[in-house]
Amino acid sequence: MDESEFGGLTVCVVGLGLMGGSMAMALRGKVDTLIGVDKDRAVCRKATKQDVVEDADTDLETGVGLADLVILATPVRAIVEILGQIGPWLSEDATVIDLGSVKRPVIEAMDALPAHVRAIGGHPMCGKETSGLDVAEADLFRRHTFVLCQTARTDDDTLRVAEALCDAIGARPYMLDAERHDTVAAKVSHLPALLSAALVGGVMPGGTVDPATGRVASTGFRDTSRLAASDSVMMADILLSNADAIIDSVNEVYAQLDELMAMVQAGDADALRAHLEGIRQARIGWAEEHGFTT
Amino acid sequence: MDESEFGGLTVCVVGLGLMGGSMAMALRGKVDTLIGVDKDRAVCRKATKQDVVEDADTDLETGVGLADLVILATPVRAIVEILGQIGPWLSEDATVIDLGSVKRPVIEAMDALPAHVRAIGGHPMCGKETSGLDVAEADLFRRHTFVLCQTARTDDDTLRVAEALCDAIGARPYMLDAERHDTVAAKVSHLPALLSAALVGGVMPGGTVDPATGRVASTGFRDTSRLAASDSVMMADILLSNADAIIDSVNEVYAQLDELMAMVQAGDADALRAHLEGIRQARIGWAEEHGFTT
Repeated sequence: MDESEFGGLTVCVVGLGLMGGSMAMALRGKVDTLIGVDKDRAVCRKATKQDVVEDADTDLETGVGLADLVILATPVRAIVEILGQIGPWLSEDATVIDLGSVKRPVIEAMDALPAHVRAIGGHPMCGKETSGLDVAEADLFRRHTFVLCQTARTDDDTLRVAEALCDAIGARPYMLDAERHDTVAAKVSHLPALLSAALVGGVMPGGTVDPATGRVASTGFRDTSRLAASDSVMMADILLSNADAIIDSVNEVYAQLDELMAMVQAGDADALRAHLEGIRQARIGWAEEHGFTT
Repeated sequence: MDESEFGGLTVCVVGLGLMGGSMAMALRGKVDTLIGVDKDRAVCRKATKQDVVEDADTDLETGVGLADLVILATPVRAIVEILGQIGPWLSEDATVIDLGSVKRPVIEAMDALPAHVRAIGGHPMCGKETSGLDVAEADLFRRHTFVLCQTARTDDDTLRVAEALCDAIGARPYMLDAERHDTVAAKVSHLPALLSAALVGGVMPGGTVDPATGRVASTGFRDTSRLAASDSVMMADILLSNADAIIDSVNEVYAQLDELMAMVQAGDADALRAHLEGIRQARIGWAEEHGFTT
């Protein structure tokens, strides 16, 4: 699919929060018609007024029925629910893609779409700890990986549409099996967010904490606690949808903490240093290999 | 103590790594004489060659004996050890301050210094995940909190020297009781570093991990895993020196993780969302109250 073909599409973005709003902003002027659907009437009004989309409405059936390309940008459990509804409403050549953080349940629901529909799973690896249309931005996806997962409804044309979409928003497409995606995302996305939440929950139970923390905390706490401010509905959906992979990852962290704390309690400085040095080298090696500068 | 008085001092920095090297760089041209001590001869040579200090040597006794102000910038267990040695070598009016991350054992060792010596505990709340003289920088302390802890050897003159030091390096002095410091630092400094290490240890055990993590990981993993690259000798010293407060904090995180995972395993979406939302609000409220912008 070349630029002019992609430019002729009618695109419907479902869910106009941080991800959907940013997607619409990134696509403005690059497609023929851009419409939105959100269950919140106030969000629809704001998205229309601010020209994020040409038109937005709470009516899912009409919105997806008009579209050549449907982009599902709700929390992941809502994506699965919507995929169970929209099959009969989609037009003959429609392509469906999603932006959900967990892929196995989405792919399963896409596999069950009617045979005339094309569908592919997507997960743009970017985001913010803030949420909602107000913090959406057109450059959110730029230079970030956009994971693509094949389904039973993916053909060559589907791949071309997905790649044209990535091209339009400046993202880098990366084909990945859904199961492998969910395992890897559990480790490097879902687990960090969960640990960040547990850190904040542990440090300020019920929101109370020594005010001296405000003077003593520096960039370390700022960075490790940032993800605890993530949208709670999105996070709950992720934890519930990728529970098995996340539980495995949490157990690996428990094992690490237990091992480190046993060394602390034994006062075993040599073992502690050696273990921490191994971890340090692993982080440095990984960051260098994959171009992470901090 | 005014600027000209501070400018007349001979200062000896013990430990020329990230913290001590940065301290020396920040003090260059602001004191009469600036010398360094490091147990590593190559570091001494480099610090002298690069004019980080006017002279550096491995001989602790001579170095501290010459100084009006001794700044101990080694890992915290070495600080305690050095404090046990240098009492007889210090000149009559010498002031000792340290930059260690844990304060109770340091204060205890300072209390045991000879009566003619002045001493105060210090902890600048800044740092990097990298270590050593090569990454030292003069602006490291600028606009950061510099915790000061009184000892039995702290008088008004000691406080004036410590405040003049903070002024010279652009840091913000903040008086805090050593016990309270250690409790607060366990929560917002030591615990985040430990969780970061456990995260990396869990995600890449033995340094092996699916290379797809390099494409899927984004700012979330980058920020939550960054502290795992911290100097392992420094981190081991911190964990061993503040073990009781850190164990308490780790247990609070365990309790939080257990609670969250129980909700995940029960599939209780409402409870999970409510709990995560409480944590989210706590983080947002704390960040707003204390001027953290992310």
